[in-house]
Amino acid sequence: MKLRHSIMLGTLGRYADRFHCYQPARSLEERLIDIREVIKADGIEIVYPQDFADERTVELVKKSGLPVSAVNVNVKSEDKWRRGSFTAPDEKTRREAVAYLQTGMDLAAELGTDMVTCCPLIDGHNYAFEADYTKQWRWLEEGIYAAASHRSDIKVSLEYKLNESRNFNILSDVGRTLYLCEKLGLPNLGITMDVGHALIAKETPAEAFSLAAAAGRMFYLHLNDNSREWDWDMIPGSVNYWDLLEVLFYVKRLNWSGWISYDVFARDGHPIETLQATISIVNNTIELLDKVGQDKLEELLAGGVAAQTFAHLVKSLL
Amino acid sequence: MKLRHSIMLGTLGRYADRFHCYQPARSLEERLIDIREVIKADGIEIVYPQDFADERTVELVKKSGLPVSAVNVNVKSEDKWRRGSFTAPDEKTRREAVAYLQTGMDLAAELGTDMVTCCPLIDGHNYAFEADYTKQWRWLEEGIYAAASHRSDIKVSLEYKLNESRNFNILSDVGRTLYLCEKLGLPNLGITMDVGHALIAKETPAEAFSLAAAAGRMFYLHLNDNSREWDWDMIPGSVNYWDLLEVLFYVKRLNWSGWISYDVFARDGHPIETLQATISIVNNTIELLDKVGQDKLEELLAGGVAAQTFAHLVKSLL
Amino acid sequence: MKLRHSIMLGTLGRYADRFHCYQPARSLEERLIDIREVIKADGIEIVYPQDFADERTVELVKKSGLPVSAVNVNVKSEDKWRRGSFTAPDEKTRREAVAYLQTGMDLAAELGTDMVTCCPLIDGHNYAFEADYTKQWRWLEEGIYAAASHRSDIKVSLEYKLNESRNFNILSDVGRTLYLCEKLGLPNLGITMDVGHALIAKETPAEAFSLAAAAGRMFYLHLNDNSREWDWDMIPGSVNYWDLLEVLFYVKRLNWSGWISYDVFARDGHPIETLQATISIVNNTIELLDKVGQDKLEELLAGGVAAQTFAHLVKSLL
Amino acid sequence: MKLRHSIMLGTLGRYADRFHCYQPARSLEERLIDIREVIKADGIEIVYPQDFADERTVELVKKSGLPVSAVNVNVKSEDKWRRGSFTAPDEKTRREAVAYLQTGMDLAAELGTDMVTCCPLIDGHNYAFEADYTKQWRWLEEGIYAAASHRSDIKVSLEYKLNESRNFNILSDVGRTLYLCEKLGLPNLGITMDVGHALIAKETPAEAFSLAAAAGRMFYLHLNDNSREWDWDMIPGSVNYWDLLEVLFYVKRLNWSGWISYDVFARDGHPIETLQATISIVNNTIELLDKVGQDKLEELLAGGVAAQTFAHLVKSLL
Repeated sequence: MKLRHSIMLGTLGRYADRFHCYQPARSLEERLIDIREVIKADGIEIVYPQDFADERTVELVKKSGLPVSAVNVNVKSEDKWRRGSFTAPDEKTRREAVAYLQTGMDLAAELGTDMVTCCPLIDGHNYAFEADYTKQWRWLEEGIYAAASHRSDIKVSLEYKLNESRNFNILSDVGRTLYLCEKLGLPNLGITMDVGHALIAKETPAEAFSLAAAAGRMFYLHLNDNSREWDWDMIPGSVNYWDLLEVLFYVKRLNWSGWISYDVFARDGHPIETLQATISIVNNTIELLDKVGQDKLEELLAGGVAAQTFAHLVKSLL
Repeated sequence: MKLRHSIMLGTLGRYADRFHCYQPARSLEERLIDIREVIKADGIEIVYPQDFADERTVELVKKSGLPVSAVNVNVKSEDKWRRGSFTAPDEKTRREAVAYLQTGMDLAAELGTDMVTCCPLIDGHNYAFEADYTKQWRWLEEGIYAAASHRSDIKVSLEYKLNESRNFNILSDVGRTLYLCEKLGLPNLGITMDVGHALIAKETPAEAFSLAAAAGRMFYLHLNDNSREWDWDMIPGSVNYWDLLEVLFYVKRLNWSGWISYDVFARDGHPIETLQATISIVNNTIELLDKVGQDKLEELLAGGVAAQTFAHLVKSLL
Repeated sequence: MKLRHSIMLGTLGRYADRFHCYQPARSLEERLIDIREVIKADGIEIVYPQDFADERTVELVKKSGLPVSAVNVNVKSEDKWRRGSFTAPDEKTRREAVAYLQTGMDLAAELGTDMVTCCPLIDGHNYAFEADYTKQWRWLEEGIYAAASHRSDIKVSLEYKLNESRNFNILSDVGRTLYLCEKLGLPNLGITMDVGHALIAKETPAEAFSLAAAAGRMFYLHLNDNSREWDWDMIPGSVNYWDLLEVLFYVKRLNWSGWISYDVFARDGHPIETLQATISIVNNTIELLDKVGQDKLEELLAGGVAAQTFAHLVKSLL
Repeated sequence: MKLRHSIMLGTLGRYADRFHCYQPARSLEERLIDIREVIKADGIEIVYPQDFADERTVELVKKSGLPVSAVNVNVKSEDKWRRGSFTAPDEKTRREAVAYLQTGMDLAAELGTDMVTCCPLIDGHNYAFEADYTKQWRWLEEGIYAAASHRSDIKVSLEYKLNESRNFNILSDVGRTLYLCEKLGLPNLGITMDVGHALIAKETPAEAFSLAAAAGRMFYLHLNDNSREWDWDMIPGSVNYWDLLEVLFYVKRLNWSGWISYDVFARDGHPIETLQATISIVNNTIELLDKVGQDKLEELLAGGVAAQTFAHLVKSLL
């Protein structure tokens, strides 16, 4: 198990929901300095095309010395994606989505990582009788296949999410994403599991992790939390602490190595403080695994009696 | 499109939840007569082993003249399944679950149908650190593969469901079930889609139907309804009427032929009345499709503007 | 029963969520003309202070000849409300929230209506151990009491909502709002029921309407729809059609008179088209009540057997 | 703060859901011995009329020396309540529900407690157009008023719950229950807060506790847990650990004294083991409050920055 902590550049920038703007925009330079010198993270996740609006981006990132964990390809925000990206009814738009993913792959190579991650958040539907479901899935398959075939040295990691911006996103859960990967059969295709997305999809995050890992497709991990009804992007473990512990238990048990990135947004206080707390909580939770005892947990798991397990777990907190 | 209505024998029998018993037990003979002569359904769905407790069952069913739509294999109710069926930690129990499914397949053949349906409702977990997710999924794959390989002339149709009896069932949604089918690669393996289960899994039923149909795995359809939070087994269309209409639109559009079975339980009034209403509602909704206009719906779907679609839909109701 | 349709000015303006901007900003003049001449609504709902940024607002509204259904007081969007409005820990901020509501009341009088509506969307909490619940509720009571006491000729109608922007809003459901009204005892204090908010609070909208009406506090009605998990602000009846029908049945049954306002946002197509469809759907659904038969519905209600009710309802659609 | 642990007799008896029977029935004697000698609880909660089926019940309970925390009046299970109890359309049934509650009050006095608790789980509705909401609420008010007026020395504590057995229970959340108490104005009327019920009503349990306590109506506490979608009656703190900690923080902060009863059912292992673990977890969590520091928590609460709070909380677990 080798884990590295990555900060999404966006989590240090402007943040607004429908009703309120919580955080102001901040320059790329400023954010890179904070990540390296204050947060002391191991790397960054960077969004294409938004974070590349400034043409000095590649240069600034390289100069920062911070490794890039993944290029996150955004196919949802711009006007052109209004009716969808990989599943837009318009063929030209679908081709553009593929091109975005391919450009992201090339940028990843240039920035020294082997990973792009992409969450197709505007592919799906809001209303009944609004989208042609049969075509949409075929277009998704075609688009992802075309993009991932672009080059085999870069992994394409798909991030599933139940809803937002669409009421029903097409790539909604781990099973569906694994089905897509299995059907397309490309070895460089895999999964970004965001714990918050697993929770709103009514999954058990550690179970989704295990399922994707067993398929050899557990590529990239996003940690955060929520109350299982909406993707609030909260501090990991701040709601479902046992789920965080269990995810890290499986990470260790399956000897998974990779980047952990944090889709955590601050609505109170400063984002730097939030991200520092985030990394400290994850490290301390890994330490708690030792306190509880990985072997003891294996033994309790084999027993399968929740009363024994939780009596032990809570006692271990004292 | 050729549709036939099937009645689950259980929906005319005893019905109780944790707190209240709503319907008394009734004899098999009585129920068969009601289905044929009062409800006038096209066939029945029968549960193995419970409905076969009486050794005259095969004879009684044959004598009734009612075709069997599917044998429903129950691997959840008996004591022996307490810790799971296909994913029980005990190997002997897992083998027994496989044997049940195979016996169900043989019974199906004997009763003149080519379909068993099975909803593994006790495979999953309730608590964190209770089940070994990695083993569970492997056991599920092994068990389903072994069972479905028993004979290729009988279809094994898996019914997914998010929860109940487990807080988290392992076969929770359509994507995961398609992944399993795709991975095992057996042509006689497919999906029973229960509209109520799709709703609690936060799916759009018509979309799940289309996805399974495109994979050639949409074997069997259960209709009912709920408010998307729990599987109340309500009358079809009584909550999400547009979803029922959209499912039937896709049934027609994809020219799907098969059995529609009704997992609908009466908590008020008599089950006969409930099932009569159920079939009448489905038939009338198919008729409404004509009133709205299948071509008009295709046109609205191509337009993709909900305002136009719903203005037309509601106007059509007058 | 006398119903009038009101358009929220905001629904014709800029619209964006976390990830995408769906509609551009439009001038007040333009919107007033559209409402009067294209949508042909009966009035408008206007937001203080945002819609009053232009000092000509009062003049423009009066000139338009469109009645104002209510002044909607926004105590959530501006920076100053970051930590809450009526329940902000800072006393000066709490006083400012009260002042906003009072100014809204005066503006209402000036614009010829007797109603302000207010949804305190930033009062609540996101995390455990973040807010002092005991103080928060007391502050809410004090603030609302102070505001509503400002003048008795203007009704203060509180709009409850489960969440957003807070993970947990303090004024979350109809029961809590009625409790507040009852406790404060002011006759000019009542409830704005937004059907979408009722749905995400897991209420039955018609039941919430009946409860508030029986208490003499059902002041103002917002129609829209969603799938009961998030406030998507969809076209009324586009998901839960029977709920819309049932709300309108109670409106008629209780002979309720008042404004219906539409918190409906267009993410596809033009807002004008969406709002036209919205009003047409509501009018046609009122007409459907006649087709189904208000008396027949009373009879079915008295019977209380869902099978009979829904068989009749669906048959009526043909 | 003086807390006492009570065991519901039912949690040691037969336990079944729709699909599986998890625990066999056990005699009253046996259960009383287990509670006193093995679990070593401080008292019992007993159900009228079911636990009084045996005419020796009062004698056996008295002989056991175990104090009774409350008599739990069951108005849901028997056939007669099929259409409701306090809100049944049939007047005689409604009067019988009132009589049950009054009998429960007399039994409470006889058994030496001042508390009955009642969760009206069959009052509400399943379908649209099934219940007359206006009458139902009036009947609820009349019934509860009549019952609680029976004698002022016994507290009537109402337990709210969102759903089950009805899809929509009428007494669904804390706000509505407080509204009822406030409206009826009887000082012996209050609230049983079940943490699991608060969670499925999308409440924050500690907030609901604080709200009821501030109104002087926080009478009785049920602890258990679930994933906020269904009342699984799990071990307290096994899902939402921070919520358990926060509830106990408010119990201590508000110096609340009373009985804590455990609506916790074992689906794996023996109920004795489950209830022992339950009490141990609650006691250890109270101890954890000291380890974290009640004063430190007050300080973090005053700060209101989740990053600081959760960094501290998780660090405290090591």
